[in-house]
Amino acid sequence: MTFASDNCGPAHPRIIEALARANDGYAASYGADDLMAQTRARLREIFEAPEAMVHLVATGTAANALALATLAQPWQTIYCTPLAHINCDECQAPEFYTGGCKLSLVGEADKMTPTELSAAIAEAGHGNVHVAQPGPVSLTQVTEMGRLYTLEELQALSGVAAAHGLPVHLDGARFANALVALGCTPAEMTWKAGIDAVSFGGTKNGCLGVEAVIVFNPVHSWEFELRRKRAGHLFSKHRFLSAQMLAYLADDLWLDMARAANARAARLAEGLRSLPDCAFLAEPQANMIFATLPRATHQRLHAAGAPYGLRAGQLDGADPAEPLSMRLVCDWSVSEAAIDSFVEAARG
Amino acid sequence: MTFASDNCGPAHPRIIEALARANDGYAASYGADDLMAQTRARLREIFEAPEAMVHLVATGTAANALALATLAQPWQTIYCTPLAHINCDECQAPEFYTGGCKLSLVGEADKMTPTELSAAIAEAGHGNVHVAQPGPVSLTQVTEMGRLYTLEELQALSGVAAAHGLPVHLDGARFANALVALGCTPAEMTWKAGIDAVSFGGTKNGCLGVEAVIVFNPVHSWEFELRRKRAGHLFSKHRFLSAQMLAYLADDLWLDMARAANARAARLAEGLRSLPDCAFLAEPQANMIFATLPRATHQRLHAAGAPYGLRAGQLDGADPAEPLSMRLVCDWSVSEAAIDSFVEAARG
Amino acid sequence: MTFASDNCGPAHPRIIEALARANDGYAASYGADDLMAQTRARLREIFEAPEAMVHLVATGTAANALALATLAQPWQTIYCTPLAHINCDECQAPEFYTGGCKLSLVGEADKMTPTELSAAIAEAGHGNVHVAQPGPVSLTQVTEMGRLYTLEELQALSGVAAAHGLPVHLDGARFANALVALGCTPAEMTWKAGIDAVSFGGTKNGCLGVEAVIVFNPVHSWEFELRRKRAGHLFSKHRFLSAQMLAYLADDLWLDMARAANARAARLAEGLRSLPDCAFLAEPQANMIFATLPRATHQRLHAAGAPYGLRAGQLDGADPAEPLSMRLVCDWSVSEAAIDSFVEAARG
Amino acid sequence: MTFASDNCGPAHPRIIEALARANDGYAASYGADDLMAQTRARLREIFEAPEAMVHLVATGTAANALALATLAQPWQTIYCTPLAHINCDECQAPEFYTGGCKLSLVGEADKMTPTELSAAIAEAGHGNVHVAQPGPVSLTQVTEMGRLYTLEELQALSGVAAAHGLPVHLDGARFANALVALGCTPAEMTWKAGIDAVSFGGTKNGCLGVEAVIVFNPVHSWEFELRRKRAGHLFSKHRFLSAQMLAYLADDLWLDMARAANARAARLAEGLRSLPDCAFLAEPQANMIFATLPRATHQRLHAAGAPYGLRAGQLDGADPAEPLSMRLVCDWSVSEAAIDSFVEAARG
Repeated sequence: MTFASDNCGPAHPRIIEALARANDGYAASYGADDLMAQTRARLREIFEAPEAMVHLVATGTAANALALATLAQPWQTIYCTPLAHINCDECQAPEFYTGGCKLSLVGEADKMTPTELSAAIAEAGHGNVHVAQPGPVSLTQVTEMGRLYTLEELQALSGVAAAHGLPVHLDGARFANALVALGCTPAEMTWKAGIDAVSFGGTKNGCLGVEAVIVFNPVHSWEFELRRKRAGHLFSKHRFLSAQMLAYLADDLWLDMARAANARAARLAEGLRSLPDCAFLAEPQANMIFATLPRATHQRLHAAGAPYGLRAGQLDGADPAEPLSMRLVCDWSVSEAAIDSFVEAARG
Repeated sequence: MTFASDNCGPAHPRIIEALARANDGYAASYGADDLMAQTRARLREIFEAPEAMVHLVATGTAANALALATLAQPWQTIYCTPLAHINCDECQAPEFYTGGCKLSLVGEADKMTPTELSAAIAEAGHGNVHVAQPGPVSLTQVTEMGRLYTLEELQALSGVAAAHGLPVHLDGARFANALVALGCTPAEMTWKAGIDAVSFGGTKNGCLGVEAVIVFNPVHSWEFELRRKRAGHLFSKHRFLSAQMLAYLADDLWLDMARAANARAARLAEGLRSLPDCAFLAEPQANMIFATLPRATHQRLHAAGAPYGLRAGQLDGADPAEPLSMRLVCDWSVSEAAIDSFVEAARG
Repeated sequence: MTFASDNCGPAHPRIIEALARANDGYAASYGADDLMAQTRARLREIFEAPEAMVHLVATGTAANALALATLAQPWQTIYCTPLAHINCDECQAPEFYTGGCKLSLVGEADKMTPTELSAAIAEAGHGNVHVAQPGPVSLTQVTEMGRLYTLEELQALSGVAAAHGLPVHLDGARFANALVALGCTPAEMTWKAGIDAVSFGGTKNGCLGVEAVIVFNPVHSWEFELRRKRAGHLFSKHRFLSAQMLAYLADDLWLDMARAANARAARLAEGLRSLPDCAFLAEPQANMIFATLPRATHQRLHAAGAPYGLRAGQLDGADPAEPLSMRLVCDWSVSEAAIDSFVEAARG
Repeated sequence: MTFASDNCGPAHPRIIEALARANDGYAASYGADDLMAQTRARLREIFEAPEAMVHLVATGTAANALALATLAQPWQTIYCTPLAHINCDECQAPEFYTGGCKLSLVGEADKMTPTELSAAIAEAGHGNVHVAQPGPVSLTQVTEMGRLYTLEELQALSGVAAAHGLPVHLDGARFANALVALGCTPAEMTWKAGIDAVSFGGTKNGCLGVEAVIVFNPVHSWEFELRRKRAGHLFSKHRFLSAQMLAYLADDLWLDMARAANARAARLAEGLRSLPDCAFLAEPQANMIFATLPRATHQRLHAAGAPYGLRAGQLDGADPAEPLSMRLVCDWSVSEAAIDSFVEAARG
């Protein structure tokens, strides 16, 4: 399933090698390993945030849910878009971890505007005991439709949040893909843009399973550790999380993989654009493409063993021209040859 | 920290190799990988339980808490010993995951007897709306003091539970160490002894981080999957959990590592027994030793860089003869030389 | 605040008298009182449901949240309208009590159609572990905009739910007002229309504070009792809840009060209709009126001590003709004179 | 069941009359009623705490669970005695409301000592992420065995708590009975003795169902209101809670009723003491008596329609002399004649 998801791709060999290297003799457990100390230092350096709280977990859902539980009170509502991963793809992990927060859906799809956010917060009943109280704003970068918030958009949204005293969380499952697309620094895309907490993804971009939760105000650190432990997300042989993250960051491997993934997606988009009946549902900006092709094209691709799925609708159907939508994701490892073959097969 | 914990030891090289092998091209995500199908089949075969629910998570706390949440209702109490890992070492993960279960402590330390369990259940208020209702019984094998329940003891305890309609969970973080010590089959130590659900540990016995939750009545499988997902414990690149478990089970690696760990602990116990002032707090039966040494001995060992910690008390103190307790754990990788050196250093 | 809410009105004197009568000597506590046995029998008779589970609580939010927690699993979503009391007015009690359910909003305002419900259920990911699973449907009768579902509408909605195996809950905070408006029997408006559980309101319709939770399949009764107790909603001097409910049901007091409230609201609506600038936001069908009046009219009414509030907008404002919306509620006790005075004051 | 529980007794007629008086016309709902303003002012005056947070709920379990949820974090443990109502009689309401706190049992029965509390806190793992963190201390006054903490004992216990930065909660379901027995002021028995939050009971001492939660540091007030609302414990017709509490406090009714109850219990204790085979399990200090009588005496009393229950053991049994324990509670309304008859019947 080459294009189904960056979760289907392999880890980078240097990450695997780092695991093997870390597997040497005895090491302190539960996050007290030397590699974690190095990882924390390196992430603080990369984020220009020498005091930041930095902890590792193995999944993106854990990172998001634990970060939000740390930022929110149970009687609050979390502002996110209708397509947000935390709303659509985590089986209510945020509701479970926060002890019953509501999610208030802002915007129409994968992005929200400051105007929409302002209106949503104004609608809520701050100070009215009968209704959910305003809580954290959670933004996804790269969005769930493969788009980006510009730094100005992030600043404007966090400005609205700050005006109401609300913290801002960034779901950065594809943080690196966004960063290289924007060409900015990690600090610029986070705390300098008013972001309070980040789920800094490694898994989708070439690790086996590791995400860092970074909170710029370290006052939450001990609470986060307790929440992580009681959720069963504190690894005993923690060095194997640290080793992944450290190798991911070393020698800009994370940035190189993100650039490769984005470049492949751009090539794929270019190829699709050359087809007569392809329509993009969103302008691709990172490593994901949302587009439609006629049913007949999908049928031809699937007959040829196409490595992706439809987003909706049925492959079998009466009308061969009916446009059916798909999501195509390029991970760091996909080859140009695979992309070119796919486009050729689509061209028929 | 050679003897501090089996969580401090390395993974077996064959497990690391399996990760590297699994890292080949694209694979279905979220548990739909081929390796998981093989893992499930293999565990069902090993447990002689062709219908059993089998799912993987990365930590023992997740395995225990998710298993108990699946077996218990929020208004029930879980019967365990005062020293149970779920009571002492999981920062209330069971309370969090079950939505507020109580833990009722049975027995004095790490083991409970059928008489004690019967009395505890009788004390509870079955049918009295004011009090916690009887819920699952959770036993640990190897216990937290390094001891074992015999098959007869397990059967007697599960018989008490069954007489009250209560399910039985086995915390098998050191399942393999117990199995080879008892010399029985996995089926005999679980469902044939009345166990309903097992946390089948891999992490402590030579994996990086993987545990299987096995429930013999598969009616709970879909609920378990939903609970795992909303807890953030479903891995996207799941093949890296499957690969560990599959390699762990292949060619009896899991049994060989457990036998090695137990043998080393027996050698260490024999060495300690030869010292004039060593007293065992529990008769070692697997790969853990709980014993006391005089303060002066501890001081000598620590001066020599001793790779373990005290359980209680202070290394510095007035009385050099005061017995201070320690826990020593042997993992699969500890060498006979390391053991012999330790004993020699203790002998002074 | 005569028209602000039926929560602001007094209890019927016969309810108060019943409390005084119940206050005689010693009575069994925690729901074992004789009056509760009578209450249960009477409600089963009224609902033609001899086996139904019947329990009392003191507030509507408790009734709704406990009923939904009993019907739902934590990983499910509850289908309700955007204006549903459980969504807008309970500070996330359903999310808290269910352990993290989501609420999926169906329809545009206070009512949903079978088509909308079908679409919402179809959208959800039954069998997809990543998303909220379909759960109970919760309908409000009288709706939050003062409208009614016809029996045919209830049947059609419950038919959709049943086709997906989902239970249906009815928030009947104004059950009696709906019943007399429809002119049907309690059975027809509930289990004969496919409703599984009802919050049967007493508080708004002339009691001090009592609601019955009725579940037609009594299999949930013991679970409900445990949930009620651990939520602190089981009254020790329970006779004072029973006495209210019993007096409420005696001699059709509940129906008489509902008829009075509805008749007063009809008179008020008729009066408002005679004003030149009054517009109804929904056709009044029970005891609530949602309408707009020009700002100048509101200002005149408030200057005269008007006993109601605005729904939105500011009393002070530049444009005297701007229509501002209000909610007017008639309880059982409001006099015709009060209504006529109000209309006259509005007329100016 | 005259002696079964003070929950079985009637409300005082003046409380009922106050309800009838409060039932006059329209009143603001949800705690904004004038009577609540008066109640809050009166309680602040009585407690000499002009800033204290004061809120009403209808049950003691709600008061305790909401107060503890406000004071505790989900990863903490609450220190209480094994016989504490919150441990034995609330079906895990504290665990539910706090989101998974543990209860650590201190002492042997109904009271704890500073030494025991210190040891329990020392045992806990402050700063150790694997274990429950120290949380609130909850004391019951009158205790569940009918005993009292002296002011000195309260001060000593709260001193231990304060030394560890832990807040202290007082379960005052029988606050008034304790107060008149000690002959001190409400301030002396609470904040002057280091108590941070009180469940101030009205129900058992002559109300229908009302308890005040008083927190001396008002910083928690808004959080408490939100917790109360989302738990369904905010009354819409709140004036009926306020009216009870206000009448309870008026003209020292609460103190008079407590004095009456205590005096009757003293008379009953004196009577029992005159019997040859009565043994007290605890020295009665307020309105509860825990004692044993021979089985034959119990049988005689029950044959005569005895209004109490056994605490354990069977009424039917071989040995007529076997001592069986009972709990006898005197409420404000029990007559001297009833007591004398009971003693006479016991004497045979």
